Amino acid sequence: MAVLSIGIFIFDGVEELDFAGPWEVFTMGNEVAKHMGRKPVHDVRLIAERHQPIVCAKGMRVLPDLTMGQCATLDVLLVPGGQGARREVDNPAALSWIAHIAKEAKWVTSVCTGALLLTAAGPAKGKRVTTHWSFIDTLRARGEAAEVVERQRYVQDGNIVSAAGVSAGIDMALWLTGQIHSPDFARTVQRGMEYDPAPPYGSQA
Amino acid sequence: MAVLSIGIFIFDGVEELDFAGPWEVFTMGNEVAKHMGRKPVHDVRLIAERHQPIVCAKGMRVLPDLTMGQCATLDVLLVPGGQGARREVDNPAALSWIAHIAKEAKWVTSVCTGALLLTAAGPAKGKRVTTHWSFIDTLRARGEAAEVVERQRYVQDGNIVSAAGVSAGIDMALWLTGQIHSPDFARTVQRGMEYDPAPPYGSQA
Repeated sequence: MAVLSIGIFIFDGVEELDFAGPWEVFTMGNEVAKHMGRKPVHDVRLIAERHQPIVCAKGMRVLPDLTMGQCATLDVLLVPGGQGARREVDNPAALSWIAHIAKEAKWVTSVCTGALLLTAAGPAKGKRVTTHWSFIDTLRARGEAAEVVERQRYVQDGNIVSAAGVSAGIDMALWLTGQIHSPDFARTVQRGMEYDPAPPYGSQA
Repeated sequence: MAVLSIGIFIFDGVEELDFAGPWEVFTMGNEVAKHMGRKPVHDVRLIAERHQPIVCAKGMRVLPDLTMGQCATLDVLLVPGGQGARREVDNPAALSWIAHIAKEAKWVTSVCTGALLLTAAGPAKGKRVTTHWSFIDTLRARGEAAEVVERQRYVQDGNIVSAAGVSAGIDMALWLTGQIHSPDFARTVQRGMEYDPAPPYGSQA
């Protein structure tokens, strides 16, 4: 299999775990391939509007690998959320880049309020999507999605896959890894990141 | 309660999710406080040896907030792991800084192979600790810990708390949040990051 190009869009105010979780999953795929004696299977890049440090929602500063202008096609696009997504949803440059990339991409995905960008940009218009629990009503009110699903970790509609809030991106990225490669491959990635989660004070209500 | 200083040590080859997971948990604590009408409760910083971009284990580039020289005391120290931890375990500057900080810190914590640094530097010598499943034997062979515990998400021994691999740092940071504030506070953080995990291909064997 050829190496898969995976681009994660980042912007000021992007929520840290929204992109760092899937980044870990996708890049761990290369570790798994290496242990199997194979070449890297994923080329994972952080893509921003400009070549400047991104200041994330909680203050972490991250350097993008590429600008949107340097990236014309991707196999997988991931759009995370965060406070900054409320600004990017009105950024024509971001929306047109997402729309352009989505046309040729095999998979177009979002985490958290990244779903607002996927609907505003077009790819998720008329699709079933989900988002962070506190933005379900906001996304519904925009009226762009066919349905805004609650209480699911991720929702697939064709090649559009949207995850719920923040940490749900990890589950979505693992699921996608299983679809692209195999469930066994995804389980090996999961084992590499020792993802056998046990929230210490129980599940959410 | 006074704001708690939380420092996360980062270094070239640090595993991305090892520190980004706890970072999300600790900084989300401030969001929760804000929603309660309170001031920030955590001052969370990424601390490196030098003021240079850190190239993480899987290639993400992150800017540190402070150098070790700029940080003399912390309430909470978190030492993540990753390939680079195998180098840092022989870095006298890192080990002596960790030892110095640990003397006054309320909590001294590690994620993944960060446990090697905590034992090598001294704070976790003679303590019960855990690490990434693939490094249990390595840590045992070093002979510094009193016991290297398997198959636990995190292990507490006094004020030393070590988490298992990569994603286990999220569970450990949530647990610590509950100890520092309250289980209810930690559950609200958990809800903010929608951490109701559901690995798509089942739990690990």
